[in-house]
Amino acid sequence: LSRRSRLSFDTVTVDRTLKVRLHRQLYETLRSYILEGRIGAGMSLPATRTLAQHLGVGRNTVVAAYDQLLAEGYVEAQSGSGTRVASRLQSPIHARQENALAHPPGLSHRGELMASQPQPPRSPGKLNFHPGFPERATFPFSTWARLLARNARRRSDDILGYQSFAGYWQLREAIAEYLAVARGVNCGPDQVIVVTGAQAALDLVARLLLDGGETAWLEEPGYLGARSALLGGGAELAALRVHRRGWELGDPDLPPPRLIYVTPSCQWPLGTIMRLDERLQLLAIAERHNAWIIEDDYDGEYRFRGQPVQALRGLDLSQRVIYVGTFGKTLFSSLRIGFLVVPPSRASAFERALSVTGQFAPLLLQATLADFIREGYFAAHLKRMRRLYVRRQTDFIELCRRELSAWMDVSENDAGMQILGWLNPPFDDRAVARAALRYGVDVQPISINYRHDTPRHGLLLGYAGLDDREIVKAVNGLRAAFQSLNPTRAAPATNRRVAPSNKKRMDLS
Amino acid sequence: LSRRSRLSFDTVTVDRTLKVRLHRQLYETLRSYILEGRIGAGMSLPATRTLAQHLGVGRNTVVAAYDQLLAEGYVEAQSGSGTRVASRLQSPIHARQENALAHPPGLSHRGELMASQPQPPRSPGKLNFHPGFPERATFPFSTWARLLARNARRRSDDILGYQSFAGYWQLREAIAEYLAVARGVNCGPDQVIVVTGAQAALDLVARLLLDGGETAWLEEPGYLGARSALLGGGAELAALRVHRRGWELGDPDLPPPRLIYVTPSCQWPLGTIMRLDERLQLLAIAERHNAWIIEDDYDGEYRFRGQPVQALRGLDLSQRVIYVGTFGKTLFSSLRIGFLVVPPSRASAFERALSVTGQFAPLLLQATLADFIREGYFAAHLKRMRRLYVRRQTDFIELCRRELSAWMDVSENDAGMQILGWLNPPFDDRAVARAALRYGVDVQPISINYRHDTPRHGLLLGYAGLDDREIVKAVNGLRAAFQSLNPTRAAPATNRRVAPSNKKRMDLS
Repeated sequence: LSRRSRLSFDTVTVDRTLKVRLHRQLYETLRSYILEGRIGAGMSLPATRTLAQHLGVGRNTVVAAYDQLLAEGYVEAQSGSGTRVASRLQSPIHARQENALAHPPGLSHRGELMASQPQPPRSPGKLNFHPGFPERATFPFSTWARLLARNARRRSDDILGYQSFAGYWQLREAIAEYLAVARGVNCGPDQVIVVTGAQAALDLVARLLLDGGETAWLEEPGYLGARSALLGGGAELAALRVHRRGWELGDPDLPPPRLIYVTPSCQWPLGTIMRLDERLQLLAIAERHNAWIIEDDYDGEYRFRGQPVQALRGLDLSQRVIYVGTFGKTLFSSLRIGFLVVPPSRASAFERALSVTGQFAPLLLQATLADFIREGYFAAHLKRMRRLYVRRQTDFIELCRRELSAWMDVSENDAGMQILGWLNPPFDDRAVARAALRYGVDVQPISINYRHDTPRHGLLLGYAGLDDREIVKAVNGLRAAFQSLNPTRAAPATNRRVAPSNKKRMDLS
Repeated sequence: LSRRSRLSFDTVTVDRTLKVRLHRQLYETLRSYILEGRIGAGMSLPATRTLAQHLGVGRNTVVAAYDQLLAEGYVEAQSGSGTRVASRLQSPIHARQENALAHPPGLSHRGELMASQPQPPRSPGKLNFHPGFPERATFPFSTWARLLARNARRRSDDILGYQSFAGYWQLREAIAEYLAVARGVNCGPDQVIVVTGAQAALDLVARLLLDGGETAWLEEPGYLGARSALLGGGAELAALRVHRRGWELGDPDLPPPRLIYVTPSCQWPLGTIMRLDERLQLLAIAERHNAWIIEDDYDGEYRFRGQPVQALRGLDLSQRVIYVGTFGKTLFSSLRIGFLVVPPSRASAFERALSVTGQFAPLLLQATLADFIREGYFAAHLKRMRRLYVRRQTDFIELCRRELSAWMDVSENDAGMQILGWLNPPFDDRAVARAALRYGVDVQPISINYRHDTPRHGLLLGYAGLDDREIVKAVNGLRAAFQSLNPTRAAPATNRRVAPSNKKRMDLS
């Protein structure tokens, strides 16, 4: 041992009062000495017996520390003569690294693009007026917990080991049966691909059906989540304009599409239902261009007059409509189970590609959901929710008209879990959303759904998840927010006369 | 009503013995008549009273069917004179559609590429020798089920409504604490991004850190899942060759990287642990090129001599190492919870981009896992598994040497849940895997992990998940598979003399 190294080791100590075990303490001290260059490459460590005596510990403690340093390559064994710092190490290591760039590389252009269009964040602890959040008080959580625990105790291969990337077979069967009855979609279980929610489904189709630079038609205004997924996949977006009266399918400025994204059951955010003649025209356009259609049926279950309208997929004989569904709106949003219906001839490719993206839902939840559907709880819950939401929508609209009509105009919608409220000029919906947050209400501005055109301003109000007490608080919060932005205007109370002057604003066509 | 339309309606009937409700039956019949062109555009439907009399049903039944057709756009109301088929419809619709292409469009080039490199599928019902599957018999499922049910009954916003896209905060805290103690990685909870497993993490980094055409170094042989994810992201791959003795970091043919993917704790598939001097050299290379490093620490918890080796991320002062971890190997593979550790300055961008890809794990499972870690069950389970696996590895190697040494050469490994068995020439590992399947054993050929070089043939044998009885059956199955491919060679029983002749084959350097 050189004099210098001997000096270094005099400062090595261990502390018996710490919870960290002694050999670990010793390992960490020696490691930091090496990294900091206090013991240089090639220098010998004291003999284990010597260091043990110095520290007043058992020799095994020192041996364990040396073994770990040896295993990690900090030291090497000298033939016949103990242990020395690895000769390959150029020290001081940490001092050298600190000279390196202290900041990491940047994201890719694609990564920046994806990060620039996130889903709107929620603010926890506020009244949640965001669209798409279902009622939770009446969800049968004890049943759900019981089914879940039953599956969680199983150790069989189907739930623990074997991962069919396209999903749990019994769930795929249950979804196919449900779609036939409820949405008029006929497909086999092999065509159902289960993923971690509708957003994952959109991300997957954007990559599997489009190459970078190809054209996708996106509704304008249209769903932000779809826009982000398509942009992330490198698509060139073209605006398929939508008004209250319908989709502008004949727009001559539209370039030939490779993919068309639509929400025919309840247009996001306008709430319009696509007419049959438009559906047939859309199918004909897609056939002409050999394009895919993505039908995002995010809440097609909820139509309050008559039966739900049959899905576009049910009219499609040429298998070019990919149906996207989710249980996040019908059960609860953090469940993270959605699915696609794909053509039989593409099912295997989807499954294989899915194994690369990792967007598969945990089998435990899939099995529990399959039980929940098969044992009738899902249908019963939907039925109950449909009744509840129709009443809530009526009450909510009445409340809005009474309390908010000076600033916002709402009208009934046959479908969906949210209501569009158009703002009277000159309100900016982002400013309103910010103000609402100050009054404890978390709302989503509609302008985020515009990309090409000057946005119209409004709020997409998810009334479905708020109970009678909460909805009153939420509307009062909105009212206070409007007043704070426009303090000169008195509260209109039951003044219905403002309605006609808003009519013009409502007409989007 | 014209004579022709009257004739059509004579054939309309309903069947009271069916479970389908009468108005639904009537709707479906009329709908198919319209789609098939039996009732043309503009033609009148009978008055509701007339049709009700003809069918012998209540008038409300006909009104409900007409309302649904009206809602879906098949018919329109004529002012003052009943209902007619929508004049915009050009019939026959279905006959026209059947002339269209009966097959859907193709996948994108990217989609085809992703689908061409799937994760190796498992064969259910076979003895599972695939790498990466943990023991299940001793997993505390009743504890897990109890924690799960407890969380499933909660209705609070944190678990049902509010979705922080980067994960459940308490889980992120628990992971950060665990990493500091177990893997020598110091990070804050805000740097931990929870995703649906390690594959999702790889898919995410391939897109967020690389643009199409940029260079990624991938170990050769290297993990197929990483290769697929990087190719799916458009990366150009360069082979960072690995041998038993180490990583060829000085290879002059390697182009400048944008990203480097490595498995330093236990190289996949060779099992090598990266030496400290190699780790420092790798960090220096990444700094020189301002490249990212992806450290896939898929089973770094399992090292059987001494403590686990500290993660590469723990040595990195410039925040360019993205650490990828998973609970699929330590708990159970279908849990689908993995995570990344990212630089603080990039955490928000990762979270936002993740909201676009939908690769977030269900909050219910995240909350349950957080409880499982915080209440000490995870540490206890790991400790138990470490003891179990070290014994299983010893037994397994002894068994292989006794039963399979004529065909395959295995050696101990300090780390990991799988053992590499090199095949004696001229065996093709895919042929062996196919033969093994016939004898009830599902194994993974090593050649799938080669991309640039001629593959060496071997099996990556996941011994960890098989109990004493299963491992004997699995080895017997392999033995039978070898014999079926090479029937002239007698079983070597305890013939240890074959070992030396295999040594040369073992030396990969």
